Amino acid sequence: MQSVSRSWLLLSGFVLFYVIYLLFGALVFSSIERPVEERLRHDMQVLTEEFLNRSCVNAASLELFLLKVLRANKYGVSVIGNFSGATNWDLPSSMFFANTLVTTVGYGHTSPLSDAGKAFSIFYALLGVPFTMLVLTACVQRLMYPLVIAPVSALQKSGLNPRPATTIHFVLLLVLVLLAFFLAPAAVFSTLEASWTFLDGIYFCFISLCTIGLGDFVPATQPGVKHRGLYQISVMVYLFLGLMMMYLLLSFFHKMADLHGLTTLLQLPRCDDSDLEDDREPIVGGEPKAPPLKDKAASKPLDPSSQASYNSISKG
Amino acid sequence: MQSVSRSWLLLSGFVLFYVIYLLFGALVFSSIERPVEERLRHDMQVLTEEFLNRSCVNAASLELFLLKVLRANKYGVSVIGNFSGATNWDLPSSMFFANTLVTTVGYGHTSPLSDAGKAFSIFYALLGVPFTMLVLTACVQRLMYPLVIAPVSALQKSGLNPRPATTIHFVLLLVLVLLAFFLAPAAVFSTLEASWTFLDGIYFCFISLCTIGLGDFVPATQPGVKHRGLYQISVMVYLFLGLMMMYLLLSFFHKMADLHGLTTLLQLPRCDDSDLEDDREPIVGGEPKAPPLKDKAASKPLDPSSQASYNSISKG
Repeated sequence: MQSVSRSWLLLSGFVLFYVIYLLFGALVFSSIERPVEERLRHDMQVLTEEFLNRSCVNAASLELFLLKVLRANKYGVSVIGNFSGATNWDLPSSMFFANTLVTTVGYGHTSPLSDAGKAFSIFYALLGVPFTMLVLTACVQRLMYPLVIAPVSALQKSGLNPRPATTIHFVLLLVLVLLAFFLAPAAVFSTLEASWTFLDGIYFCFISLCTIGLGDFVPATQPGVKHRGLYQISVMVYLFLGLMMMYLLLSFFHKMADLHGLTTLLQLPRCDDSDLEDDREPIVGGEPKAPPLKDKAASKPLDPSSQASYNSISKG
Repeated sequence: MQSVSRSWLLLSGFVLFYVIYLLFGALVFSSIERPVEERLRHDMQVLTEEFLNRSCVNAASLELFLLKVLRANKYGVSVIGNFSGATNWDLPSSMFFANTLVTTVGYGHTSPLSDAGKAFSIFYALLGVPFTMLVLTACVQRLMYPLVIAPVSALQKSGLNPRPATTIHFVLLLVLVLLAFFLAPAAVFSTLEASWTFLDGIYFCFISLCTIGLGDFVPATQPGVKHRGLYQISVMVYLFLGLMMMYLLLSFFHKMADLHGLTTLLQLPRCDDSDLEDDREPIVGGEPKAPPLKDKAASKPLDPSSQASYNSISKG
């Protein structure tokens, strides 16, 4: 039981350190970028006032004005409204930005203006991206038993063969993830964001959870949004849980591909056989076997039972 | 030797299909988005002319105008210049967009305007992201022998122990990748892009090869850039090769972490032992051994010798 508690301790430590790392990033980004943003915001205000006071507006002066407007917009400083709009670099917004860096989603709805901010982004992501993947992997390893291994062995116990049992449970889990992490959030986003349709919501969820993060739709960026900080933190939690489920599904898919001989066919790496013995048994055993004891599974919670390993950081 | 040619055939097939898939995406995005973009471009031209013909410009009318300008800008339609600027949806630009989708870099410097474009993006990435990771994995597996296994075994033959041999080669490879995929491209970009500093170049390379893709710096987007299509295709090739090297480095790092007991310490998945026997020997063998025969390595080129496996798509 000592290894159980050590393993839980390690996971809790990972998650705690992850939150601290995000907070640390938020504080640094906020302190570096906020003054620069305020200066830009002030400059844009002066520029707009000057533009409005001109006696005549010609094509050339308009173009010069728009050039500056668009450049400021690139850094998330809009000239729309009364210039008193929410900053992009308060604590929750900075944390949201730090989160999009370490998860490699990178919406780019706002981005560092100063050289110091850019240099810190590189340094921050260099450590943060691998660490985030490590935390996600550790969490997925914990979830493999209750969400994949136990249900599949239950299906097998009810008389199904390993292959159909695995396939049926994969489809079931896929439908559940679609409902809980795509359709339901899309419905919520299309309600909370005035200009978003339901398709926009689905598109946002998909583009985010694939870590593509185009940034054409980003929640909590419209001016005058209520409880902005809380909203941003909720989106961060959604992104973390969603990415975790994507990892889990992929790990499950990899096991299924092994089982159906797809990896061999394509000459690709199989799941880590030597390490997977324990949890593979109930999934692929020739005949239904007793599921591994809860204690046994719990005793190896950070055991290499997941293929969504920290190799996955290769994309980061 | 039959398995060698079959394996090469499979890899060539993957790469060929990857290019065809990008071309297919480019054609569909171009045909869906180009008319929508042209309509928006025309609307913006009319709007700007109307705005210039007004007798007086007040704060309200300016704000309404800017609102529309910024919205159009979000989709890559700028009101700067004479409206005859390059479209975002010609064939190379559409291919560049398709490429940022499937690699999950997702700059978002341009994004689909129409619902059909958004729906197609989802469908396209759903197949394209896993496939891209598969192609990258297959390429990395081919490169493991010449770039990692052979040099490490050469170092071991020269009398070094396995651990220092691996560490020295890792540092060497890291420096080479930094030079070839960060510093050199940054120098090129800061020359080609008028407004980029060298730090901007490094920042772009880093943010891209981590697949964060903020999109605040995107090459070949400035108006009037020469040989735009060729430039965009070069950037695509750079991204592909760069991501491949990131995979390779990560895979190598994972092996090194195993060797130094780091994976065991953190209770994380080790490299796939059972499958790695062949190429691990020369790296971790207690005493320097003869490197595997070239033919032997070549006979298993798509063999699971890389940990940058297609699990990595979990992030996509």
